[in-house]
Amino acid sequence: MKKAGVAILGLGVVGGGTYQILTEKKEYFKKTQGVDLTVECVLELNKERALSLGVEENRIASSIEEVVTNPNVDIVVEVIGGTGVAKNFVLKALMSGKTVVTSNKELFAKHWPELEEAAKKMNAGLFFEASCVGGVPIIRTLQEGMQANKIVSIKGIINGTTNYILTKMANEGSSYEEALKEAQRLGYAEFNPTADVEGFDATYKLSILSSLAFNKKICIENVYREGITGVNKEDIAYGKEMGYTLKLLGIGKDTEKGVEVRVHPTFVKNENPLASVNDSFNAVHLVGDSVGEIMLYGRGAGALPTGSAIVSDVIFAAKHDEYFYASFENNEKGNAAVKFASDFTSQYYIRLSVADKAGVLSKISGVFAKNNVSISEVKQVAEDDGSAQIIIITHICHESLVKKTLEKLKTLEEMFEVKGVIRMED
Amino acid sequence: MKKAGVAILGLGVVGGGTYQILTEKKEYFKKTQGVDLTVECVLELNKERALSLGVEENRIASSIEEVVTNPNVDIVVEVIGGTGVAKNFVLKALMSGKTVVTSNKELFAKHWPELEEAAKKMNAGLFFEASCVGGVPIIRTLQEGMQANKIVSIKGIINGTTNYILTKMANEGSSYEEALKEAQRLGYAEFNPTADVEGFDATYKLSILSSLAFNKKICIENVYREGITGVNKEDIAYGKEMGYTLKLLGIGKDTEKGVEVRVHPTFVKNENPLASVNDSFNAVHLVGDSVGEIMLYGRGAGALPTGSAIVSDVIFAAKHDEYFYASFENNEKGNAAVKFASDFTSQYYIRLSVADKAGVLSKISGVFAKNNVSISEVKQVAEDDGSAQIIIITHICHESLVKKTLEKLKTLEEMFEVKGVIRMED
Repeated sequence: MKKAGVAILGLGVVGGGTYQILTEKKEYFKKTQGVDLTVECVLELNKERALSLGVEENRIASSIEEVVTNPNVDIVVEVIGGTGVAKNFVLKALMSGKTVVTSNKELFAKHWPELEEAAKKMNAGLFFEASCVGGVPIIRTLQEGMQANKIVSIKGIINGTTNYILTKMANEGSSYEEALKEAQRLGYAEFNPTADVEGFDATYKLSILSSLAFNKKICIENVYREGITGVNKEDIAYGKEMGYTLKLLGIGKDTEKGVEVRVHPTFVKNENPLASVNDSFNAVHLVGDSVGEIMLYGRGAGALPTGSAIVSDVIFAAKHDEYFYASFENNEKGNAAVKFASDFTSQYYIRLSVADKAGVLSKISGVFAKNNVSISEVKQVAEDDGSAQIIIITHICHESLVKKTLEKLKTLEEMFEVKGVIRMED
Repeated sequence: MKKAGVAILGLGVVGGGTYQILTEKKEYFKKTQGVDLTVECVLELNKERALSLGVEENRIASSIEEVVTNPNVDIVVEVIGGTGVAKNFVLKALMSGKTVVTSNKELFAKHWPELEEAAKKMNAGLFFEASCVGGVPIIRTLQEGMQANKIVSIKGIINGTTNYILTKMANEGSSYEEALKEAQRLGYAEFNPTADVEGFDATYKLSILSSLAFNKKICIENVYREGITGVNKEDIAYGKEMGYTLKLLGIGKDTEKGVEVRVHPTFVKNENPLASVNDSFNAVHLVGDSVGEIMLYGRGAGALPTGSAIVSDVIFAAKHDEYFYASFENNEKGNAAVKFASDFTSQYYIRLSVADKAGVLSKISGVFAKNNVSISEVKQVAEDDGSAQIIIITHICHESLVKKTLEKLKTLEEMFEVKGVIRMED
């Protein structure tokens, strides 16, 4: 039977879950996987926390040096997070020839090539299934399940906090602020929710997933990002009436002009399987040129789901001596491969508040026509105050043309306000 | 760069798709996967077919012996189907030390232990991702993505033909016969549709998937099977009104009393992600004790989706020298591990045609109570002819108690007919 010693760096939520799975299922893994996994040591500044989880005192390491020089440690699990200490520790582990398993998306999104270089040099494994979409095996699917395909597109609901908020706004008509408060009360959103609601977390994950999908290193600087703080319940309600559901999507597309990668609120058709992914669930929808569309769905976060992904990596590392390394076609900075944000095409939902008088629709649709933005659907709703809401859904067109159209619309005297502009995906 | 020679046995739909991917993407795989794959030979009785696909004449083998003694062949792809010639060929390939990649679910469901024994003995690989759910990487997910979990349940829409038929019945109110005809016209159903509509195909797949999920060999004889030929549009419509969608599910559950495995029409709640899986799409929903619920979704059949799964296996086999073998806890027959079909519990939808007179509901619900079948929901609809439809949804109870209840109901003079009995899953 293969044996492996594991060290866990950080015993927070995910580290605790990982420790729990590894210790409670030791016998189960021997029986079902033929591997004998032992948590050799943990590195956790809060000693009380470690003891409360059942870690024996002599297994609480006092420094990273103690961990990486321990000959019984084969696999180092990093679940500290961030790019300071975590990066330092991961590099030390790799340079000591230890295989690293991490859930650290920020570290991976920002420093992947550097980590991989160290791993390759020392012939150590580098595993990161837990960095994206929790327990859903999306990394392994991209590495080993879709190799026969050129991936055409990846679209994901890859942040549970924002999906919870948008689901609540859609189902209960809550405002963004109300839904955020409820998410915070339930522990789905942090006290400072910026990383989630402004799309940073999704950007890290999309950078990792689209790099793997397209065999090109996509830097986070090349990901267009827009969060959900500007989303209002009126647009969600109008979209619903017209057959669309609003989601914060991470979108990557491999086009002839290059790769485009963006995170922003997006209307998807109700028939799209992503539209039914609710609450804090995550899902990633892939289109491959051979397989067609596939989707993976599950919990994107939490102690045990993320611990499940980490332990799956640990078991894989313990069983196999060959590791996956990414083979990117481009250089580390990867700018050449990526299209500028203004260069992409999309369908658009546009809601305007206008004066409710004769001829206004004709005037407005004229502006769209003049700017080569073709209209697919129009809805006009009269308001009590003498204004009207006009909702326009365009055909696919360039973002830059939509921007020009909106600039021109703002100069019309009948035009009160551009209330909402939301990109759409089928 | 790693090199591998591939032989393809059978150039039907899937074999043709596999040949196409392997030849068209040879350079792409060299670049992205670092493997150089060559189709060394094919075995296909219809020589014209092989030539029309572009196979050079000198690469068309004339016998299995020629294939397995070819030193340039490392990987044999079997896409003939069935358990006659295919079994013979696969065993010959394995016994010659060739790694086998197959899409043959029937062969695997019926003879897995024998094949695996041969593979292990010769240290050859045995890959079968394409046997279940086409291009969706469900086998790899069970082998390598969920190892940290004890799988609690598996529920799958694993037959595209029946899902197409049921979707059509639900969306358009078609009868079973009308929907089947349309499926045949579109090529989703075969001229003789028995294997699909009677649930045999799903039974093979469920046997494979639940064996992997529960680490116990589940023989097809132990899978309870019921097809969709008895389904009628009225039940689908009543279910819809009450918030349920009818699917042919393959269900596996690991319970304290043993594993239960069954294929039958099932109402699922509309909120269940399986309810939104429409047309010929497939999906598998898994619950793991750590990861919670995850679902994989995609095309279950077709030349390129299935070819995609085969080529993913080929690439994996070409890159790695270590293979996965199943480690079943039980013996080949596996009966001890499996519960009898009558022993399982479920929720039930029951539709009765009764005399529309006072007291009938009380009398009927009394029979349920007397047999310890607790009722969750009742709906009564008066018909024009003096009868009434009573629809009863039970709480979870034993199948045997429901059978007893129905026997007793049939003896009531107010009772005209048991119109429909359909199991339900959340």
